[in-house]
Amino acid sequence: MKQIDLMKELHTPSDKKIVMLVMDGLGGLPDASGMTELEAALTPNLDRLARDSICGLSTPIAPGITPGSGPGHLGLFGYEPLEYQIGRGVLEALGIGLTLTPQSLAARGNFCTLDPVSGVITDRRAGRIPTHKCAELVQKLKPITLDGVKVVVEPVKDYRFALILEGEGLQEGLSETDPQKTGLRPLPVEPLQPGAKKSAELLNAWIAKALEVLKGESPANGCTLRGIARDPGLPGYKEVYGLNACAIATYPMYKGLARLVGMDVLEAGDTIASEVKTLREAWDRYDFFFFHVKKTDSAGEDGNFAAKVKVIEETDAVIPEILALKPNVLLITGDHSTPALQKSHSWHELPVLFHADNIRTDQVTSFGERACMAGGLGHIRHVDLMPLAMAHADRLTKYGA
Amino acid sequence: MKQIDLMKELHTPSDKKIVMLVMDGLGGLPDASGMTELEAALTPNLDRLARDSICGLSTPIAPGITPGSGPGHLGLFGYEPLEYQIGRGVLEALGIGLTLTPQSLAARGNFCTLDPVSGVITDRRAGRIPTHKCAELVQKLKPITLDGVKVVVEPVKDYRFALILEGEGLQEGLSETDPQKTGLRPLPVEPLQPGAKKSAELLNAWIAKALEVLKGESPANGCTLRGIARDPGLPGYKEVYGLNACAIATYPMYKGLARLVGMDVLEAGDTIASEVKTLREAWDRYDFFFFHVKKTDSAGEDGNFAAKVKVIEETDAVIPEILALKPNVLLITGDHSTPALQKSHSWHELPVLFHADNIRTDQVTSFGERACMAGGLGHIRHVDLMPLAMAHADRLTKYGA
Repeated sequence: MKQIDLMKELHTPSDKKIVMLVMDGLGGLPDASGMTELEAALTPNLDRLARDSICGLSTPIAPGITPGSGPGHLGLFGYEPLEYQIGRGVLEALGIGLTLTPQSLAARGNFCTLDPVSGVITDRRAGRIPTHKCAELVQKLKPITLDGVKVVVEPVKDYRFALILEGEGLQEGLSETDPQKTGLRPLPVEPLQPGAKKSAELLNAWIAKALEVLKGESPANGCTLRGIARDPGLPGYKEVYGLNACAIATYPMYKGLARLVGMDVLEAGDTIASEVKTLREAWDRYDFFFFHVKKTDSAGEDGNFAAKVKVIEETDAVIPEILALKPNVLLITGDHSTPALQKSHSWHELPVLFHADNIRTDQVTSFGERACMAGGLGHIRHVDLMPLAMAHADRLTKYGA
Repeated sequence: MKQIDLMKELHTPSDKKIVMLVMDGLGGLPDASGMTELEAALTPNLDRLARDSICGLSTPIAPGITPGSGPGHLGLFGYEPLEYQIGRGVLEALGIGLTLTPQSLAARGNFCTLDPVSGVITDRRAGRIPTHKCAELVQKLKPITLDGVKVVVEPVKDYRFALILEGEGLQEGLSETDPQKTGLRPLPVEPLQPGAKKSAELLNAWIAKALEVLKGESPANGCTLRGIARDPGLPGYKEVYGLNACAIATYPMYKGLARLVGMDVLEAGDTIASEVKTLREAWDRYDFFFFHVKKTDSAGEDGNFAAKVKVIEETDAVIPEILALKPNVLLITGDHSTPALQKSHSWHELPVLFHADNIRTDQVTSFGERACMAGGLGHIRHVDLMPLAMAHADRLTKYGA
């Protein structure tokens, strides 16, 4: 039986509340001092909590696999990331705060440079035009309409934009138009399954109109579409867990991911402090709180060890305020590691801490990667976390008689 | 998504090199001294390395399952051994250094004793005739020819031989001819799937001719065929991992297993010292080096604790020479345990050590079964090792966006 189906079958009402505090990119690697970002940070509150919790290390996807933000969070939310996949077009749209409906088809667009005579691609990224130029070009593409569907096009960053069609009968299963090499013409969108013919025609019609608009431009006189996909239609938190869930996050991508699993996305401002305020105000209205701290990851991606330490310390400082709300289950971890040393997401396990009444405390007395190696949870996987959180909140009945 | 497919999708070029050092049958059990073979051995180099590495314990197949050499190595190579299987006929052929093509069909042959009147089997192993007698009989079988296929027959050991047919349209899915009891006649080869009819006819024709040749012999006047199988056609290391891989081994079986996954098999002499020489000479030409030490297993199988200790010490002595080549990832483990106390393969976990730049070191300060129980990798599986090695060599891109 699949875990999701098991959760659907076993969940049972309770008034216990769960907080999942996710520090994005939390896991790190030791720098010259021999300590990771989390180990180097002064975290008196997390350390005190660790003494009264059960800890461990969690693998986001599988050993050695570095997750993107999508699969990293799907795992945390209890959806097997190797089974449930979110198309790149969908993530691109979510990342800039666009909302998708079940009728939406989303693509990632790239501006490119075409040879005006032969039509072959001479630069797949149009000389990496700056974002303001991208926004200017997208503005010119906005008037394009298609019969029977709504068209949304928005700039993302540099040469990237997001295109969404919305209407009846749109299907995924469509080829990409980027030939992946220069010297070749962009490909047409081809339906890879019978139902996708209409969608391919619409996208090809949009591309034809876009090329007319871009004709005189330089260097971005063409575009390609990739990762054309629909909302994966995941069963939501209410259905799977019986949870009234909300998301408290500052960045569009994470709000979008939470929306995909049916969480209410709350207005949470831009800072950890404003997120805590939102948490406090929403406390009586929800059972489950996904609380996302973004800047640990941003600092890791920048290779800024000290900045990542600082964000961890800032998060540590709000732990007493979260505890003051008396969550029945407080789970603290990250979606993936982003060691400042690597300046990128990595495959390394995540330290994880479970605080609840009905846990067996272990010997871990500080919250850190090496300390968690000896934790009572041992080595688990991200998809294990939600069932454990549900159990600790007395929200799962017995399996079998 | 299957791990192999994930690897195919995610692998990316890098110039980082991986060495997988496999001490066959490495895992052991404590003798009266309270120490395992690895714990008793003086291994200053491995212990020093352990301090600067991440260690753990690895299960070859699944808890409690004792692997043969085939599945043990498939796991190490990252092929789920419960899914990808290698027929006994194929292993028998590889074990004596025969090379199989995609057109080969390989069987394990057993000489047996038949009652000259009734034709029933009176001894399934022909009195366990010695190997030289087996070779003599095989010599007499070599002239047998079949229409349209090449026939290869070679002695293996005692009453066992290998038979290979090679030609167009040979199929597996064939029944064995050994009735598994005395007092019954050998069975004919039966096709178990429609495409295998021709192969069954050819094998039955070969058996009929062999019985003619063996008619006057005693005690080996008959033979049976078992484990009739083809090269499983595994996707190779280049396809799965993008690795230019080579095998450095002294025994035919391991060379054959490496060939099945597309590794180049290098001439490596008979000793650990000659294997190191081969490693050094091949260093610039490959990305991945499977370095196999056989005699740990042989000593274990002999129940010779002291001899196994000695082979481990001999391997320890070449560690500095391997490190001098500056492998980016050095992974040390075994394919399965062979405790001298059990004189056979066993299901016990294998100590495993990962040495690379981007690891989190743990508290393990010596390389041994008990020390590795507290290792930072925790308990993993053999199939996890290749993805981890690939990740540590910066050879995997992110999964999902």
